[in-house]
Formats: sequence, C-alpha cells, structure tokens
Amino acid sequence: MRKKPLFGRFLEIDLSKEKTSEMEVEPEIIRKFIGGKGIGAYFLYTFLKPKTNPLSPDNLLMFLNGPLTGTPFPSSGRTTVVTKSPLTGLYLDCHAGGYFGPELRKAGWDGIIVKGKSKDPIYLWIIDDEVEFRDASKIWGSSISETVEKIRAETDKKAHIASIGPAGENLVKFAAIMIDKDDDPWRAGVAARGGPGAVMGSKNLKAIAVKGSKEISTFDKGKLRELAVRLNKKIMEHNYIHIRRVIGTAYLVDPMNRLGILPTRNFQQGFIEDHYGIIGPNLRYYTKRDVSCYNCPVVCGRVVEVNGKEVKIEYECIALLGSNNGIKDIRDVAKAVLLCNEFGLDAISTGNIVGFAMECAEKGILPDVPKFGDAEGQRRLIEDIVYRRGIGDVLAEGVKKVAEKIGQGTEKFAMHVKGLEIPGYEPRSSWGMALAYATSDRGACHQRAFTARAEADGILKRFSTKGVARFVKEVQDERAAAFSLVVCDFMPLSIEDFISGLKYAIGVEFSLVEYLKVGERIWNLTRVFNIREAGISRKDDTLPPRVFEEPLPMPPDGEEKIRLPKEEFEKMLEEYYTLRGWDENGIPTKEKLEELGLDKI
Amino acid sequence: MRKKPLFGRFLEIDLSKEKTSEMEVEPEIIRKFIGGKGIGAYFLYTFLKPKTNPLSPDNLLMFLNGPLTGTPFPSSGRTTVVTKSPLTGLYLDCHAGGYFGPELRKAGWDGIIVKGKSKDPIYLWIIDDEVEFRDASKIWGSSISETVEKIRAETDKKAHIASIGPAGENLVKFAAIMIDKDDDPWRAGVAARGGPGAVMGSKNLKAIAVKGSKEISTFDKGKLRELAVRLNKKIMEHNYIHIRRVIGTAYLVDPMNRLGILPTRNFQQGFIEDHYGIIGPNLRYYTKRDVSCYNCPVVCGRVVEVNGKEVKIEYECIALLGSNNGIKDIRDVAKAVLLCNEFGLDAISTGNIVGFAMECAEKGILPDVPKFGDAEGQRRLIEDIVYRRGIGDVLAEGVKKVAEKIGQGTEKFAMHVKGLEIPGYEPRSSWGMALAYATSDRGACHQRAFTARAEADGILKRFSTKGVARFVKEVQDERAAAFSLVVCDFMPLSIEDFISGLKYAIGVEFSLVEYLKVGERIWNLTRVFNIREAGISRKDDTLPPRVFEEPLPMPPDGEEKIRLPKEEFEKMLEEYYTLRGWDENGIPTKEKLEELGLDKI
Repeated sequence: MRKKPLFGRFLEIDLSKEKTSEMEVEPEIIRKFIGGKGIGAYFLYTFLKPKTNPLSPDNLLMFLNGPLTGTPFPSSGRTTVVTKSPLTGLYLDCHAGGYFGPELRKAGWDGIIVKGKSKDPIYLWIIDDEVEFRDASKIWGSSISETVEKIRAETDKKAHIASIGPAGENLVKFAAIMIDKDDDPWRAGVAARGGPGAVMGSKNLKAIAVKGSKEISTFDKGKLRELAVRLNKKIMEHNYIHIRRVIGTAYLVDPMNRLGILPTRNFQQGFIEDHYGIIGPNLRYYTKRDVSCYNCPVVCGRVVEVNGKEVKIEYECIALLGSNNGIKDIRDVAKAVLLCNEFGLDAISTGNIVGFAMECAEKGILPDVPKFGDAEGQRRLIEDIVYRRGIGDVLAEGVKKVAEKIGQGTEKFAMHVKGLEIPGYEPRSSWGMALAYATSDRGACHQRAFTARAEADGILKRFSTKGVARFVKEVQDERAAAFSLVVCDFMPLSIEDFISGLKYAIGVEFSLVEYLKVGERIWNLTRVFNIREAGISRKDDTLPPRVFEEPLPMPPDGEEKIRLPKEEFEKMLEEYYTLRGWDENGIPTKEKLEELGLDKI
Repeated sequence: MRKKPLFGRFLEIDLSKEKTSEMEVEPEIIRKFIGGKGIGAYFLYTFLKPKTNPLSPDNLLMFLNGPLTGTPFPSSGRTTVVTKSPLTGLYLDCHAGGYFGPELRKAGWDGIIVKGKSKDPIYLWIIDDEVEFRDASKIWGSSISETVEKIRAETDKKAHIASIGPAGENLVKFAAIMIDKDDDPWRAGVAARGGPGAVMGSKNLKAIAVKGSKEISTFDKGKLRELAVRLNKKIMEHNYIHIRRVIGTAYLVDPMNRLGILPTRNFQQGFIEDHYGIIGPNLRYYTKRDVSCYNCPVVCGRVVEVNGKEVKIEYECIALLGSNNGIKDIRDVAKAVLLCNEFGLDAISTGNIVGFAMECAEKGILPDVPKFGDAEGQRRLIEDIVYRRGIGDVLAEGVKKVAEKIGQGTEKFAMHVKGLEIPGYEPRSSWGMALAYATSDRGACHQRAFTARAEADGILKRFSTKGVARFVKEVQDERAAAFSLVVCDFMPLSIEDFISGLKYAIGVEFSLVEYLKVGERIWNLTRVFNIREAGISRKDDTLPPRVFEEPLPMPPDGEEKIRLPKEEFEKMLEEYYTLRGWDENGIPTKEKLEELGLDKI
C-alpha cells in the first residue's frame, strides 16, 4: 500500500472567515461511503447542525468528486453537489456533467466543502493548492455566460467554472448551479434540482473557478486504461448508446408520448397532440453541434442555436418546458431553456411551476398569467420568477409553497413530492415512476430509480404493482453506489465493471454484496437525515392528489383514460418498506441500521 | 395555346421486331388520366389483349412519366412502371425514385411502352430520339451494380439505367426493376412490387439506359419556379419532413413497434422484443451518407455500408427482412437488403416469403429451412430463391402459390392479398391498413392509402371501423391522381399545390372536384381491368385467415392480445363499396362508370 491515500482529500472553505483548510478522510469512511453522493451524505449528516436553515450561513455546500472522477474510466466527467435543499428542507444531491469535477481533481481535491457566508459577493479561484477569495461585486447580476467569460478573463481562459445566475442571487428556491456555459466547445453541466444555486446565492458566492495542473494518481494505471478501452468498446457497441449518440436523451419524447407518459398541460394528459415538433429527430434537425462531458464516448449533448445563442436541450427540458406547458415547437423550448441556463434555473422545476401557473390561469385562479401554449408568455413568466416580480415572486418559492399560499384547491394539482417538482414522466401511466418519485431521497426525482424504460420495454409490467417495489429498491441502491463513484447514469455498464474501476483507481476491492451494501447504506443514511431534519415518514412518501383522483387521458386521442388507484400505490409502498427493512411507517429499523453499520452515527 | 402539347409523347418499342415508333396521346386523354399511373392504366386496359399471360411477349412493360417529372416541382424525380403483374395476374403500377424519369423526359419522352420479346438478351440505349438495341449476352447474369457499371462503360458515364438482376432473368415472380445502383452518389430507385422485373426478364430485356439533352418545356416556367420555391419552403418547414431528413422512413420502426403494428415472425406478433437494434436512430448511427432523388429537398435516403458495399435502407426493409424474420441487428437487415438490391428482388415480398418459410420451419413443415432470427440462413434462402435452387424454386413463385403447393394449412399464414405479399403494417392492429390492403388495386399495398400514421396520431380511431372506409377511399383517389402527376407520396403538399403545378407545367387547369375525379376514374379503371383479367370481386377483397382467426400479441410483453373480427372488417368493406358506388359484390355500377366517363371504354 502507498502511504498517501488515492482518494479522500477535501478542501474546506469558510466564507465567513475567508479561511481554508484541508481535510483527509479515513480509508474506512471511504470504504463505507466511497465518494460523491455517499461521502456527501456522510458529511451532511455528520457536520450539519440538525434543523439548520438551508439558506443560513451554516448550511454546507459541497462539490464532491468520486474515485473515478477524471480517470480514464468512461463518463468520469461528472461531479456531485450535496447540500440541504432550500426547496424541500431535505437532503439534496445533484450530479452535473461537464469538466468541473476532473479539473478540481487535477487541482488535487476530491471535493470542496463550503460553509459560512461572505460579507460581499465573491468568487473563489482555485489553482491547485492555492485558493483566492475574489471580489465579485462587478459580476453579481450577470448571466451565466457573462459570468463565465468575465471570470475567465480575470483568471484563466481554460478555467472551469461553477456559477450562479440572477436566480441563485435572488434566492429562487429552484435556482441551479451551472457548470461552464452552453457555448463552450465542451458540454456544460448543471446541478439544478432542489435549488443548490440558492444556497450558493445565500452565501454571496457567485462562482468557483478551478484550474488544476496535477496528474490524477491511480492505483494501477495500466489496468485502468485497459479496462477503459474494453468498457468504451462495450459502450459503443450498445444499441441504446447508438440512439443516444444520434438523438440524445430527447429520443424518449416520442415513445413517452405514445405510451401516455409525457406530461402535458401540467399533468392533465399523458401525451401531446401533434407532437412531431418536439420529438428527438426534430431536435436533431436543429442541432448545430454535439457536445460531450469529459472523457465520455457517448457525446449525447445536443446544442441548438436560438436568438444567436447556443443552448443544450435534454428530454426533461422538452417535457417540462414543452408539452407540459402546451408548447409544441422545439425552438420555443430552446428559447425557454436558454433563459433557464442563463439565469441559472432548474428547467424541470421551472417548467413544472409555469405549467401549474398556466393551469391556474386556465381555471381563472390566476387570470393574468399566460395560458397553455403561450411560448412568449412562458418566457415572460420565467423572467418574473428570476427577478421576483409580481406573481413571479410567489412562484419562485416552488410549487408546494405557491399552492399553499394560493389555496382554492390548487394543492390538488401542485405536482411535487416532498416539495420537489415532478419531472418528465407521468406517474399514472408509469407506476414504477410513481413509487420512485414517492420514495426518492430528494423528492420527485427520475434519476434515483428510472423505471419508465423498463415499463416501455415490457421488463416491468405496465399498470401492475408486480415487481415494482423490488426494482425500485434495487436500482436506488445500485445508483446510490454509482453516484458515489462518480459516474454517469447513462452507461450500459455492469456492477462488476464499476467494482473493477474502483479497484484499479484507488486499490479498494469490493465484493458484489459489499458494493451494493454501500448503496443501501447511503440510501438509509439519507432517509435518517430526512427524518432528523423534517420528520419524513410514510405520510410524505406519496404523490399529489391529482395522481390518485383524476383519470389520465391516454394517446392517441385521449378517449381512453387510466388510473393509479391509491390502494395499488399503497401496496407497492408497503412492499417497498418490507424490502428495505423499514417499519410500516417508513422508518428504518434498528436492525437494518445495525446491519449497515449506521447505528453508531 | 402552343401547337405541340407539353405532355403526351410516348416511345413504343417492339422487342420482337426491334422496331420503335412514336405515339402522341390526345389532350383529352391526358385530361382524363394525366400521366404516370393514370395513363398507364389507360394504356394497359386499352392496348393489352384480355387474359394475356404476364410473362408472354404480349404483355406491356411501361415506364411512364407524369407532367411534373423533371420539372422544378419538388419531388419530380420519380417514374412509374405499369404492367400486368406475373405475381398477381392483375394491374400493377410501381413508383420508383431516383433520376431515371427526369432523364427520360430530357430525352424527349413522357414514357416508354415496351412489348414483344427479344430473341437474345439485349439492353436499350436511348439518347434523345435515338434508340439502340444492344447485345446484353455478356451482361446477362450480372448483379445490378455490375450491370450499371458495364452499361455505363459501353454508353455514357452519366446514363441513368433501369435494369434487372438475376432474379428478373430467372423469372422470380417478385423480381424488381432497379433504377441505377446503391453506390451511386444519388439515390437509387426501385420498381419492385408485383414482379415487374420478371416481365422485363421474360422479354430478354436486361436494361434500359437513357441520356437526354433536351430542356423540359413547361407552360409557365417563371410561375412554376415561383411555385417550386414556395413549396420547397413549405416542405422544409414541416416537422414530419425534419424527421424524414434526419432519420428517413425508418423513423417509423419505433412507433410501429410500440403500437403493435410492426410485423414480427411472419405476422405472429405486432412487435419485436429488444427492438433498439433496428430502429431509425440506429440506422442513422450506421448511415454513411444521405441520398436524394432528383429535385427533392427532403433527402430521405439512408445509405449504410456492409461487406464493403453500400446499400440504402427503408422502413419496409427493416420490417420485412428484420422483425418479420426475427432479426434484430440493422447490419443483418442491411446485408439482406444488399442481396435483394443486387439480385433485383422486391425486399418486401422477399422478406415476407422468407418469414413464411421460417414459420413453416418452426412448425416442422419445412424442417430444412432456417429458423426465425437466423440472419445467415435468410441470406442463403434469398440466394436459393434467386437461383431457384431447391425450396427456393418453389418460394420464387410468391407466398400464395407456395402455400397452395405445400398445403398442410399453410394458407392460413401465407400473408398476402390477391397474391401480393403484405408489407410492414400489421392489419389486426391497424384496421385502416386492413381495409387498404384488401381493396388496393395491386394487392396488399401500403402506398395506395396509408392509414397507420393517422391511427397512430389519433386522426383515425384505432380498433374502430369509424371513418375508415371514407379515409381509405378518399386517399386512394387522391393518391391515384398524385401518382399520375408523378410525385412522391412523402410530400406535405395539398391538392391545390398539385393542381397549381399541373397548370404551370402543362397549362391544363383543373378544379378540385375535377382533379379528384381523375383519381376516382383511374381507381375504377384498374378495378374494371382486374375484373376483366381475373374476375376480381368481393371474395378477393379480403385478408389471410390468420388476420381474422388468431389474436395478435401486443407490446410491451405480448400478454395483451387483440383481434380484428371478420364482421367488423366486412362492415368497413360494405361501407367502402357504398362510398365507391360499387355494388355489394364490389363491382362498379354502370352509373358510376358513366359518371366517370368510363362506360365507353
């Protein structure tokens, strides 16, 4: 064994004191939580005072790499942001693509833990071991692309930058942290869900710029390269990857629409009529260039040009800022995404909230808000949210809070779980997603357990509870481990591949069971955190009333309608708790925590 | 009015006598039948002796242009082949893309009418008004690409060539006439369905090579150009055209699979499991280049490379040579299509017949035939068909004849209508296609009235008879007129656009009603032809027993099964006859023929 561990060196930054320190994590903690999501959950649980206000200086904002970040392992370009969410008040982890994580690792850091609050707007400039606290008062208020350009001009042309836009500054509860910018020659990333941008804004931290010059040491460079070559080949031979290479994530728009899973007009319908304007091939038609994260063979990013600016479009953008708001032209979707990316907003939550407001308009509750299909109105509303003008100031709090404030029965169609807005898969026509949303650690999330494709392909039976709980539980655990490595969720790689990667990267060997236990441990720890912070229990593991009360019109003409009966959902949930070793109220049992070695935490 | 008509000059070629003559058609006939399909139906009905054996010297083989062929009107690159089909014994028209039609028109001809039979293998070399009968004995037996290369070497590098391969020479009943070749820098075309290649083979005519040097005169060149600019813009703004530009016709594979309309394992199922290897984006992934017909803004042809050769792949190829035979890799589909294109075979009928044979193998009726999923076996079987070896000699007669010969109940799953093999849309899950197949003039054809997209999009209700008969009847009439102009079926143009094109191209003005009457007239004339030749009536307007007797397993897992009840089908058929003004036996009434001016023919 080498003396210096190959993973576990973290940079602590106290903004209040303008001080930095180095922290090294013991190998046994790495073995238990690996990195990324896992180590983030551990840090958050351990270092955050219970019930901390997410927008107070005491909240932690962490940018965490995994043992595979920046290595030759395919899709090693991602980085994980962990904090307590200002939108949900719960544990939050986001995984952003691009080049920021690898650059941070080249600077010698496996992660940054930011706490405190700067008196004035600043940005951080990290070159290897050096950290500068720089004045950002002239940059404050700038859009993402302006911010990145200005900071690069003041630091290094090749610096990789995580920054917030006006949305984060104005503490919009679903503000994002953007990684680089859309018109970079490489892929921009985004840590968006749950509002990490607002946490950054609350700390007066406009951006973090990084430049690294070190080599990323690995345990067995030769074997890791060999593995990478083999896995790249495996990835490139996969049919579904071919689809990703050609169309990107937007491929899913057409099948989801045909299966009645595409949210339309604030989840009033599972498909949009005449959907050809927003499906994948149409996005491809307008694509100017393809962009890739660091060290990824897939190159799934699609950049289009609107209003003379470039913007990257994904499935979720199309679902939430397109069909969900009655918008059928991909160019209108692109214009809305451009606003989200420049202001630094979560496109999913933004689209969801605009859809909610549009339904309120349709119902006469918010008569001045634009109606479904009004693309220009959507753009206006997004600006109002960012600058907290008029109704925008209310909407900026997230759909759960808005509905609570407006009342008049709007809670029934405020489409969120635990305060996080539902993304691009309709739960009534995807029962797997229904359970996945209800049980996800950060609220309604599609990335913790993605079932829609399994249902579309007949691997999971549609409109049936059979096998759903097991599928969701197992994928949640497996993903929790993978998000700790840190790798992309799109790779057709096996657990064995990940375990091999870990071994060659940092010399830590896992058995299959041990590796999955890591995932399960992390999942339970985030649950315990959520119980501690917000008393989360079974009552919260649910879905909006619309899902259980209103039948969903299905394609092709909406005449057929389907339901997700509450009792079927509860059946899945109970089975899920049993499989998790949680009690009937959704609380992990003492035995389960002991089994996972969490009883001492 | 100019003295010389702008359309109506035909070249008659008697192969027996090695003589040519010129025929000019009177304007009133053009007004009644326009060109292409319509004029072909008129010629066939008028000039062909009733009950002529399709493979006898007396059969006519016509290559017909329309008034729009070769003009600036978008998609004016197609040409129509009309003959009496050796596969069905009925009227046959095929519409091939590429550059042959425009070249023929530049040579001064609106069509060629070939009759008789050459003593020895020959090919025709047409340069403007000159026609040479050239020895083809050294080319006989050559593949399509060899044929095209050899003839270009002997004539002109830029000659456009319609030729047959070994399949046509060996009188395979579903042999195609190929236009140019797949590795040309432009799009190859194919007149395939119903076996026009066998008619050409029976005449000892290996190929027709054309080079023209004349300008195609139009009635109002300026207005026609203006119209073309406007229509090109309209086409290019259409979302569905964007899809065609990006993916081509193969886009449909994924939606058809999800809707249970993709023929799988000889129409035993409406979807194939794990279909990602054959869907449009995967074809795009392997695409080497895109190819276009003459004067088409869409460029929908996808050329891939297999075995060092180039081949163009369409939806129908994937359906029939892919899923229908249990084959899930687009590269295997490409290899099979390459064989069809080089041998000169109809890929649809070939795939359908191979699927039939594979089902016979599965059932132990033809134990030596390859099983579903055996891509290499499929290639072997195709070669056996072309060279009429063993079971291939039987299969070369078409699925109807094969089933009659084999017996043992195989007629139940011989998937044809009137002897023409069913293409890539399952009739049980597309009731519109069921009626379209049953009533199409050339047997089971998807191009006479394409309903699958209307059903997929909710324009026609699925699994319902409502509105189907009217839709099918109206599209058949409209298409019959459009195929007479001659234009591509993929253009999102209105009838008004076509009428304007006709006016500016040849100075003939039509009202909307008059124009549609042309379509209806043609449709009735082909019906009368089929009655005269084969006593076609209601008993023939039907579908294979499998369609009515066996429930169809549907996606995603095959557990759900659907039916097309015979009585529902009959209901649609009766409604169709009523709308057509045909009697209950499917025979046009005297009144209808009088109304259409067909009573005197």
